[in-house]
Amino acid sequence: MTATTEFGLIQNYFSFDTQRDDVVLGIGDDCALLKSPTAKQLAVTVDTLVCGVHFPEITSAEDIAYKSLAVSLSDLAAMGAEPAWATLALTLPDVNEPWLEKFSLSFKETLKMYGLQLIGGDTTQGPLSVTVQLTGFVDADKAMRRDAARPGDRIYVTGTLGGAALGLKLLNVDDLPDPMIKQSCLRKLNRPVPRVVFAQKAVEYCCCAIDISDGLIADLGHILEASACGAKIYYDQLPVSTEFAKCSVYLNGLDYTHLLLAGGDDYELCMVASGENEQSLFSLAESMDVLLTHIGEVDASGNLSVLNSNGELIELKHSGYEHFTHE
Amino acid sequence: MTATTEFGLIQNYFSFDTQRDDVVLGIGDDCALLKSPTAKQLAVTVDTLVCGVHFPEITSAEDIAYKSLAVSLSDLAAMGAEPAWATLALTLPDVNEPWLEKFSLSFKETLKMYGLQLIGGDTTQGPLSVTVQLTGFVDADKAMRRDAARPGDRIYVTGTLGGAALGLKLLNVDDLPDPMIKQSCLRKLNRPVPRVVFAQKAVEYCCCAIDISDGLIADLGHILEASACGAKIYYDQLPVSTEFAKCSVYLNGLDYTHLLLAGGDDYELCMVASGENEQSLFSLAESMDVLLTHIGEVDASGNLSVLNSNGELIELKHSGYEHFTHE
Repeated sequence: MTATTEFGLIQNYFSFDTQRDDVVLGIGDDCALLKSPTAKQLAVTVDTLVCGVHFPEITSAEDIAYKSLAVSLSDLAAMGAEPAWATLALTLPDVNEPWLEKFSLSFKETLKMYGLQLIGGDTTQGPLSVTVQLTGFVDADKAMRRDAARPGDRIYVTGTLGGAALGLKLLNVDDLPDPMIKQSCLRKLNRPVPRVVFAQKAVEYCCCAIDISDGLIADLGHILEASACGAKIYYDQLPVSTEFAKCSVYLNGLDYTHLLLAGGDDYELCMVASGENEQSLFSLAESMDVLLTHIGEVDASGNLSVLNSNGELIELKHSGYEHFTHE
Repeated sequence: MTATTEFGLIQNYFSFDTQRDDVVLGIGDDCALLKSPTAKQLAVTVDTLVCGVHFPEITSAEDIAYKSLAVSLSDLAAMGAEPAWATLALTLPDVNEPWLEKFSLSFKETLKMYGLQLIGGDTTQGPLSVTVQLTGFVDADKAMRRDAARPGDRIYVTGTLGGAALGLKLLNVDDLPDPMIKQSCLRKLNRPVPRVVFAQKAVEYCCCAIDISDGLIADLGHILEASACGAKIYYDQLPVSTEFAKCSVYLNGLDYTHLLLAGGDDYELCMVASGENEQSLFSLAESMDVLLTHIGEVDASGNLSVLNSNGELIELKHSGYEHFTHE
């Protein structure tokens, strides 16, 4: 059998040496066999990245591998779960060994960084796409679900907003006076850092969390819908990506408000906690060197309003990224 | 939000009412939350079906939905596991609502038939492909792994062989004197019946099992490689699909030996058990109305030999279906 067969691909590129104690049998049989932790619940998430839809065609193999894990790690973070097991369904147009080597190495490093073991997968021939499913562990009743927000709760975001969306806009702009801006935004687009470690501790203080991969407004909207609440967001309090200020000097045509409120791909967390936990939550964030910003409040209005510094409503054009759109 | 958004697609087409007790939170959050059974191990498998590679483009939405679950159910069967949870990563070229309705209904019915609950998924835009991951439960140390065959053990297959591979060959043949043959073979290709229920009981008697989706020789080869053994297969004992005999009257050009030994997509089980369990295994099969055939023995030779009724070696051209092939 040659390395170009499915069996050979898995043997050559995806037999990693990480071995978790809870994996009885890993890659190489009809199924993986796993031991579940008795006192925990399992948190499961699956995401597909399609070439040309979820990442530009010029994206490197290393970045695709990293991001395919990061987006699912961000979902685990949004529940406060500890990463454990991964599967990879990889569809490739052909067997490009140098590409596979780079993909595999980056995938392996990212798994290791988060304590994940690859327990199974499938390699198929077809247009490039990557589906990753992750399973994590979370204490029963500690998971940060979407349906637990209540009027009066406070709303926060980690990190800064808009950098990844700006990166996508700058992808084909080659004449920026400061090339570091583009580089920095592309890093946010291709190498988002999931808030996995912080989130596992934040479950003590937050009732809800969601990752804002589809943009702040769309994703906060999911929390409000599931919790049957409304909210007010203070536009001037949003943590703006530092690249925005620098970039606005050169690029006038961009709708920065839209990028900030509805730009996807940031993979930061939007979190909800009751006011009495605020001090503890900020202390935790500070101790872990995570930027955390209070951006608004949950209310009983049923609407999501974004207010400027004068308390006036800001009109929103689109709510966020849609995976299927009519032209 | 319209039905054409990702959120709408899931709400409209994949919010099924099945509710397993071990699913704390199903579709609609960043992750599903699940309770594991304490005394069992988890068996996990993932498979991708790509349009034009794993199923012909003319395949109906209903058959694609059914088969995407059946192939993974067959992997659970090969370990002797009880099906529990499913995720679905569905990549669609566009939003074709009639197609989605058919796919969804067939998917739902198949889930129900096997006691599965859909706990999560992702819908993305791109060339049609379906990735299903299933989790099942199996008693610790009862799973039928590939590495447990020993010289002297006996080899069996369920059902009949070659029907699905013949179906693929007949796909574009429209002038068969007996059209029922084609229909029957296409049913084997598009609606393989995974041996889930039988396998859960057979764990008491069998040490190894594998599903022969890639053809008998290739898949038995995986058992022999993992177990560091060889085997003899008696060609005349192989359970031939009844369509073969009928078809050979009309179609002379086909290599029936190859279809039988190396034709994929049958999704029957190849099982290995020690001779002392044979009577119990046959009784079980009979009581469950499953055709089970003794086809050979494991030996210490290190080779897989197929013998004719005179005990002479049959030469094999290819070992089985390869997912990536050089032209």
